Amino acid sequence: MNITILFGGSSYEHEVSIVSAITMKKVLKQSTLQFVFVDTMRDFYLIDSEKMKSKFFSSGAYKKSKKLTLKKTGFFAEGMFGSKPIETDVVLNLIHGRDGEDGKIASLLGFYSVPFISPRTEASALSFNKLYTKCLAQSVGVKTVSYEHLNCNDARKITMPYPVIIKPVRLGSSIGLSVVKSPEELDYALDVAFEFDSDVIIEPFVENVKEFNQAGCLTDRWELSIIEEPEKEGFLDFEKKYMDFSRDAQVNEADIAESIRQEIQESFKKIYDPLFKGSIIRCDFFEIDGEIYLNEINPVPGSMANYLFEDFEAMVMRLSRNLPSEENIVIDYQYIHSIQSAKGKA
Amino acid sequence: MNITILFGGSSYEHEVSIVSAITMKKVLKQSTLQFVFVDTMRDFYLIDSEKMKSKFFSSGAYKKSKKLTLKKTGFFAEGMFGSKPIETDVVLNLIHGRDGEDGKIASLLGFYSVPFISPRTEASALSFNKLYTKCLAQSVGVKTVSYEHLNCNDARKITMPYPVIIKPVRLGSSIGLSVVKSPEELDYALDVAFEFDSDVIIEPFVENVKEFNQAGCLTDRWELSIIEEPEKEGFLDFEKKYMDFSRDAQVNEADIAESIRQEIQESFKKIYDPLFKGSIIRCDFFEIDGEIYLNEINPVPGSMANYLFEDFEAMVMRLSRNLPSEENIVIDYQYIHSIQSAKGKA
Repeated sequence: MNITILFGGSSYEHEVSIVSAITMKKVLKQSTLQFVFVDTMRDFYLIDSEKMKSKFFSSGAYKKSKKLTLKKTGFFAEGMFGSKPIETDVVLNLIHGRDGEDGKIASLLGFYSVPFISPRTEASALSFNKLYTKCLAQSVGVKTVSYEHLNCNDARKITMPYPVIIKPVRLGSSIGLSVVKSPEELDYALDVAFEFDSDVIIEPFVENVKEFNQAGCLTDRWELSIIEEPEKEGFLDFEKKYMDFSRDAQVNEADIAESIRQEIQESFKKIYDPLFKGSIIRCDFFEIDGEIYLNEINPVPGSMANYLFEDFEAMVMRLSRNLPSEENIVIDYQYIHSIQSAKGKA
Repeated sequence: MNITILFGGSSYEHEVSIVSAITMKKVLKQSTLQFVFVDTMRDFYLIDSEKMKSKFFSSGAYKKSKKLTLKKTGFFAEGMFGSKPIETDVVLNLIHGRDGEDGKIASLLGFYSVPFISPRTEASALSFNKLYTKCLAQSVGVKTVSYEHLNCNDARKITMPYPVIIKPVRLGSSIGLSVVKSPEELDYALDVAFEFDSDVIIEPFVENVKEFNQAGCLTDRWELSIIEEPEKEGFLDFEKKYMDFSRDAQVNEADIAESIRQEIQESFKKIYDPLFKGSIIRCDFFEIDGEIYLNEINPVPGSMANYLFEDFEAMVMRLSRNLPSEENIVIDYQYIHSIQSAKGKA
């Protein structure tokens, strides 16, 4: 299978997207890979596979690569003798954060009828925003922890007891996130969060909460990963969490009760189907007093959460053959014809 | 001002978008207009202003027009001597329904840094879906009427008393919508609605409910239209509602109490700011027992609701000078440099 890995983007997570893409080179060994880099100016470049090293991007050397244009059906290299398509079976969207997870890339690929693996526009817009993720979970009957919402113009008052956790609504990878233990620390934490976003959500910070990660997708069957209990040393910081993006070896399954496993899996399915069809996502759950709560949805998880699957590559191939198709809308101009008849003019 | 009117699209409302665009030609008299048509195959065409008649599209004659490519900064005509930009100050998105209102066009224009008037991706995805519109209203403290949600795979049971109104969650212009007076009629109405969408919402049908439409935008000031009480003869049907798309003369203001006017205006502002910055939207409200409820948001209203404004064209110009700007994300590759130092390799 010929897979185009799309990475980079105008995003705070631009750099980890490069790390994720390099990881894919190690993981997708049976496939023919094309690498398409979106730089911070949003120009598309075709990157030689042997150039897939982080320094090639950080040094700016990538700018000598072939520029591409996105048009109907895919990417094209423009040349002396016209446009030449970059042949591919499927595009794997690996852009984390803005562009990749907010629905822009999904819209571009969808509009131009390019087969792609990633959440579609609506699923992206909802899951990229932690506030709307709460609505989504509620609408399908999955519990989330209680929260308050503050806009940067709102009075800086919260009603829930400390400690709390403050999260910008639209960022991943723990960017702009703080644990606040007392009212005196609130102002500074909000200043930090509002540097990155106009809106934040505030949730209770539960010490020693158990976290479980479940990834998966729906191909011609449900393909659920093992459930991981990620390591936590106190609080995951930006840099440590980023190491996830280079993981390429399968991890150990969490040791959990069968009832908890089932509840996590059922919750994942409710979130996923039908909104996330065509994507591989990772949902992070909390277990509090034996109950499962959705913490967040990662619409484009670090290194595609490959380390949670036994045979990630075979699943990518099955998913590529089971992508959702957009409804075909036929326009017969009946309405315009009827106005023309009624008015006796066009 | 040089305005590009973008219309058509792969949408059930493709034909009324053509009607809306023709109306703009009558309304935007001071401006230089460019017309860019998106046909149902999603090819872009530059349409001569004098060809802006509905028959030009329904007959397929438009296919002889110049094809365009969307790239960074705007539309381009490809020719023998390279790409030539279509000069414009702003794109006015007039695609109703899919593509135009679901966030795809907003994503394309946003990604390529084209100045445009329309809701951005997130606002589009939320307001295009009647279920998520409820969440949005709730998150900003605007009331909506009670509802139930059914997916096409759910059991066909509802708990609210009849009569009810059934609406596909993602369609405008009353497409697929039914009033159901008794349980025996439910099945057929759901069959109709599920023809168009995987999800429906069910709301109580209140006879003789007063409906009020408020359009507006935020430029360097709030620009709220007059409030209209749209005419209703029983139930608005598809064809009648479509006539809205050709309206170009200012209508009369509804005769309402000052307190109701204020509540409608305050509700509009809560919905609009900041999510809908850069767009002209129309919100439709119900008045039930003296209380105001949001019925729906029209992210790309028929003929841009020009008929509700005293000087629509001057407002479009002010909005063009007050579009929201995307945050500039600077990538300094510090993270990759730090991994390189830590690992001693790239």
